[in-house]
Amino acid sequence: MDGRAHAGGPGLRGRFRAQVRDEIKQVALRQLADGGPQALSLNAVAKVLGVSGPALYRYFANRDALLTDLVVDAYRDLAAACEAATAGAWKDPADRLRALAKAYRAWALEEPHRYRLLFRAPLYGYDAHSEPLVQASQIAMNVAVEVLEGIAAEGPVAGGELEAPLAEWAAGRGMPGAAAVIAVRATTLWARLHGLVSLEIEGNFASMGLDPTPLYEGEITNLLTTPPA
Amino acid sequence: MDGRAHAGGPGLRGRFRAQVRDEIKQVALRQLADGGPQALSLNAVAKVLGVSGPALYRYFANRDALLTDLVVDAYRDLAAACEAATAGAWKDPADRLRALAKAYRAWALEEPHRYRLLFRAPLYGYDAHSEPLVQASQIAMNVAVEVLEGIAAEGPVAGGELEAPLAEWAAGRGMPGAAAVIAVRATTLWARLHGLVSLEIEGNFASMGLDPTPLYEGEITNLLTTPPA
Repeated sequence: MDGRAHAGGPGLRGRFRAQVRDEIKQVALRQLADGGPQALSLNAVAKVLGVSGPALYRYFANRDALLTDLVVDAYRDLAAACEAATAGAWKDPADRLRALAKAYRAWALEEPHRYRLLFRAPLYGYDAHSEPLVQASQIAMNVAVEVLEGIAAEGPVAGGELEAPLAEWAAGRGMPGAAAVIAVRATTLWARLHGLVSLEIEGNFASMGLDPTPLYEGEITNLLTTPPA
Repeated sequence: MDGRAHAGGPGLRGRFRAQVRDEIKQVALRQLADGGPQALSLNAVAKVLGVSGPALYRYFANRDALLTDLVVDAYRDLAAACEAATAGAWKDPADRLRALAKAYRAWALEEPHRYRLLFRAPLYGYDAHSEPLVQASQIAMNVAVEVLEGIAAEGPVAGGELEAPLAEWAAGRGMPGAAAVIAVRATTLWARLHGLVSLEIEGNFASMGLDPTPLYEGEITNLLTTPPA
């Protein structure tokens, strides 16, 4: 049933369904911004929209299904923001990497309540690694991989050696050495950005009176100028 | 009242009070491990201990007060684990930094439900930057600063230039240049470890089939061999 709204020609019924789902998600996002994931409630959404609870459950089977849609949207929007910032493969690869980092940070600062949905279970017991979520997170990772490929092609990056356990991991996935180096560098980039962003959106640098901008820039410069582990 | 248990000679009453508070915290930690911060409830603790709710409120004014004690304990225990791992200032400074990173990671993997209390509000609306929490987090940071001082004293680290905004930040706090370099490097170390640990304890590397050990090692080697931003 769900797929209909997204299928080829959705028809009036499909369009209506997609529209209602969007309205539900808008209300849910406000709940999230106002009270965190614990505040998410289909019954509360129904109240805001002036419909009955059971009517709403025709659109989302339960709170976790609604949450999954919000998480997938967040991964996609973050990826789209990063992609838009790095568009134009003709540009200087280092500039593209810097633009990627800036876009990642800017999106998280703009939408902290949505960034918090990523890379962890927003609610206890929620499966953060179900297939749709893993696929959605992969979209964001692919943007980083594509940008880093441009750098490996011309920078000092290609010369590094993978440590044995990482080389084994890559080989087990049928990756050629170059792809494995990029995958590891993309993971390092991701971890660095996630570390800084997570600390920043929770106010940890503000409480130190520290503008972390140079820390972000330093990490990207470092990634550009040092060979991978 | 509260301070009594920790003061010089607490006496029988003070000792009993400290003991009851510890028992309450042990039960609360189990709730946290079993159901996350939302599961934390003074009334539920009272039920487990077989006492009335009001009796318990004589020991902790409310859930947030209990939570604050747990967060402070977590900061202190993480700091103690890092300190124990790096004890012995005569040791090779690089080895001490590697030991610090290992201890930080090991503690987080051992106690993910407690690591999640750090550097963010575990519950919506909870103030993660109240004075006792900032002080407690500083203890962990001081361990990193002390270890990094040893490296700056002999390694390639001291030569780096601080970027202008960071230099300004440091000057505004009356830090001499060398101390500022160390503070920035400690912050970078913290962000890198927090990024990797946060991703790891939420299962993100496991879902990629990736053992992140070489990523941690790579980040520390990188910190040891490159000048600061």
